[in-house]
Amino acid sequence: MSKNLKVFAPATVANVACGFDVLGFALHSPGDELHITFNDSGTLVLHNETPYELPLSPEKNVTAVALQAMLDALQSRQGFTVTFLSKIMPGSGVGSSAASAAAGVFGANELLGRPFTRRQLVAFAMQGERAASGSAHADNVAPALMGGFTLIRSYTPLDVVPIPSPPVFATVVHPQIEVRTSDSRKILRQEVPIKKAVEQWGNVAGLVAGLFTNDYDLISRSLHDVIVEPVRALLIPEFYVIKQAAIDAGALGCSISGSGPSIFALSSDEATAHKVAQAMRRGFDHVGIENHTFVSPVNKEGVRIKG
Amino acid sequence: MSKNLKVFAPATVANVACGFDVLGFALHSPGDELHITFNDSGTLVLHNETPYELPLSPEKNVTAVALQAMLDALQSRQGFTVTFLSKIMPGSGVGSSAASAAAGVFGANELLGRPFTRRQLVAFAMQGERAASGSAHADNVAPALMGGFTLIRSYTPLDVVPIPSPPVFATVVHPQIEVRTSDSRKILRQEVPIKKAVEQWGNVAGLVAGLFTNDYDLISRSLHDVIVEPVRALLIPEFYVIKQAAIDAGALGCSISGSGPSIFALSSDEATAHKVAQAMRRGFDHVGIENHTFVSPVNKEGVRIKG
Repeated sequence: MSKNLKVFAPATVANVACGFDVLGFALHSPGDELHITFNDSGTLVLHNETPYELPLSPEKNVTAVALQAMLDALQSRQGFTVTFLSKIMPGSGVGSSAASAAAGVFGANELLGRPFTRRQLVAFAMQGERAASGSAHADNVAPALMGGFTLIRSYTPLDVVPIPSPPVFATVVHPQIEVRTSDSRKILRQEVPIKKAVEQWGNVAGLVAGLFTNDYDLISRSLHDVIVEPVRALLIPEFYVIKQAAIDAGALGCSISGSGPSIFALSSDEATAHKVAQAMRRGFDHVGIENHTFVSPVNKEGVRIKG
Repeated sequence: MSKNLKVFAPATVANVACGFDVLGFALHSPGDELHITFNDSGTLVLHNETPYELPLSPEKNVTAVALQAMLDALQSRQGFTVTFLSKIMPGSGVGSSAASAAAGVFGANELLGRPFTRRQLVAFAMQGERAASGSAHADNVAPALMGGFTLIRSYTPLDVVPIPSPPVFATVVHPQIEVRTSDSRKILRQEVPIKKAVEQWGNVAGLVAGLFTNDYDLISRSLHDVIVEPVRALLIPEFYVIKQAAIDAGALGCSISGSGPSIFALSSDEATAHKVAQAMRRGFDHVGIENHTFVSPVNKEGVRIKG
């Protein structure tokens, strides 16, 4: 059995428009890379070789918290040494902490001979998410671990459902502005009009049906968020200009990635996704907001060993 | 071309648990039967041979309003004579007015050589629903016309999506108590907690996924309504006792049919559906509430010409 591994965990888009808190999908890149190996100390030892400052005490580090949750479930005192090699920019809204959590539990699970399935690892990775954001969400960690689109049907008990999809290409624009996850949670209304909620669940059901039937037009008609986007858009300058530019360039839909500030669009082919990227980039360039843009097919595999 | 037809339109269950206002399915029986034929008067002439009192003035009759909406779209002045032969008991919560509307527009469309598809007829039948209940809902008329499970993804514009399903058997219990549709609308809260809304749309997405994948267990886990059922259950004596009895007897799930007072349960096989019927009936019998119970597979065909 291999005693050390290099693991790649992909970025993910959560809160897929109408699928707030329940639907996410994985990208091919960017992603987190880490090296994981057994150690004999019985503790978790962390090294950071990324350009970002990461908390390295095991109670605060996302990867360590997730890994510890898994070891606790196994009643194992195995020690691991984790070296963070590269990271998705933290706070960008494409599941940076979820990738860290997913990479850690996946790597350790492989080294231990796979006591758990990818689906079972979601619950442990969620604990890492809780350490990062204060609440244990799964719509980033589930696609990071399982790939493709994943539905979190329920949190208590945790019920993760993989949703198949036709080829879909994501465009993500990350403007260099800071939106704290805690702020974007606070800004949400605790009560929503039932009429809007019905619209939202009609769209979620339509989106799932469209993904199952490879019906791009239905996917496009369903990719609307009438509850969360109208509120969170306030935190992202030029949001509606950029969204309109994406749609005009041929995107199936466009909304906020996770809790922002990144904005994602989906397209049915790669050429369109690149056109959409140009259009979205221009929207931020126009007002002088620095931004990174990338295009990626939906990643059906999820976290993997990097050869 | 045939000049007169006998048409059967099935009862339907709307507000399928988590699918409030967006999801319905059709039954094999009971249903509405009517006879429809051309007449030369240029008007709609209505005869009632059912045991129920029905409004027969064309502005108030569900069938006539729906039929007129269709004729207006065709800019046609064709006259029709409609004879109502048998009817689902009005106010039972299994789409009595929807069946009347569906039967009328379907029959006239057949006589006219099918200018419209079944899906297109939904918009006309909805106008009949508006005459009956004051609001134009489609989650009864769509399955009555199209059969099977249907999703109303959106009302503006109207977007009806057929959802495939594995074999499913419905048990419906209709207690002889009156619940007015208008009352059951009024009792609803206009605002709902976002946490509950998220639970609901996770379940709707799970239900659609379960129907697509023939996953009875996922269907069962998803058949919950955390928004509307807790409020409307107040209008139905013994609701929770009967629901529990249905689940204990093996039902996949159980909730209120339409706006009540009927209660429906779904089962994966006919024998279980009959056991569930017994259990549910006993719940009402126990407190001396007269009730009718019936079991029906989901009807994949919808409204049809009755030979």
